[in-house]
Amino acid sequence: MLHTFVAYVEDKPGVLTRVASLFRRLNINIISLTVGHSERPGISRMTIVSETPAHANEHTANRIRASLHKLENVLDVDEIGKAPSVTRELALIKVAATAATRSHIFELVEVFRARIVDLAPDSLMIEITGVESKIEGLIQVLNETGDRVLEICRSGKMTMRRGKHSSGVLRAMGASDPDAPKPNLTHEIVNDNFADNI
Amino acid sequence: MLHTFVAYVEDKPGVLTRVASLFRRLNINIISLTVGHSERPGISRMTIVSETPAHANEHTANRIRASLHKLENVLDVDEIGKAPSVTRELALIKVAATAATRSHIFELVEVFRARIVDLAPDSLMIEITGVESKIEGLIQVLNETGDRVLEICRSGKMTMRRGKHSSGVLRAMGASDPDAPKPNLTHEIVNDNFADNI
Repeated sequence: MLHTFVAYVEDKPGVLTRVASLFRRLNINIISLTVGHSERPGISRMTIVSETPAHANEHTANRIRASLHKLENVLDVDEIGKAPSVTRELALIKVAATAATRSHIFELVEVFRARIVDLAPDSLMIEITGVESKIEGLIQVLNETGDRVLEICRSGKMTMRRGKHSSGVLRAMGASDPDAPKPNLTHEIVNDNFADNI
Repeated sequence: MLHTFVAYVEDKPGVLTRVASLFRRLNINIISLTVGHSERPGISRMTIVSETPAHANEHTANRIRASLHKLENVLDVDEIGKAPSVTRELALIKVAATAATRSHIFELVEVFRARIVDLAPDSLMIEITGVESKIEGLIQVLNETGDRVLEICRSGKMTMRRGKHSSGVLRAMGASDPDAPKPNLTHEIVNDNFADNI
């Protein structure tokens, strides 16, 4: 079963190691992970998609969330679950193509609402954003039409809740300094006791 | 000084921990990291942007590359350096906007060649791809025009060499099974001896 977590972390050395080690310790596979700047200086936002074993029960996501929240430099963790959300992924796809074979790739790019971002005498690079299935679709069509895919680089999934949702923790921090002490958020973790069982 | 590494890794548990721990051990800050599927099943591609200390010499990038290559489950590492390459980042930006304030955001979105991917009564979500400065530019304009940015999610940088370049290691693996033994690549590491100094 796939779970998507959005974590706000301080830009401090070692925070990625701690997050990766946690999932390793829990023996939960990370399917995809992205880290980038958030809306606030000094704080990064991670989207982590993890796969829990088939025997995992409904509390597993809460336990992972609680364990993540306990880590040093982690400010807030949101589990997206079935909430309405937008998921996007960016892919760069390099295809071998000469002047003779280019034009049908241009057509595909237009249909998939992708973009050509590089064009060399014998290759071109496509940029595409969308959900996983759309990106897989383009790659499949390229393979089936005999175009030689040379390289694929994918960002991993990024998820954001729809509507006017934003992190309550970051809102509570106000316009304050990012180095301000971590606010007390025990009320946020309703399943904290589960964390001790892991 | 910023260094960009592209690493091909096997989809095995713990590989992210090993990569993150390596940078921690070397005391090198990771600025951005993305992991996603590559062109070959069972193999993921990472783009890692790291910042080396000011006193680092020209061999630092080679040493990091060699250390990365030595890790278990790492198949190939490329340091982009000054080679011609395309760098892209994906950002999702959620802005508070009502019917009255929406239209000027639509105009900005068009100028920046971005896309609206969600529209709620009091907020909307923008998807933008490009280099860092373009994304920063849009965020700056949104802030200056008084639009309240609620959430920003950024993928981190993805880099791909221009032209018909692809991983020699993956080419050498041919159409073989991804579980095939790691090919002997000692000739790839020209500065292997530096790795012992770290």
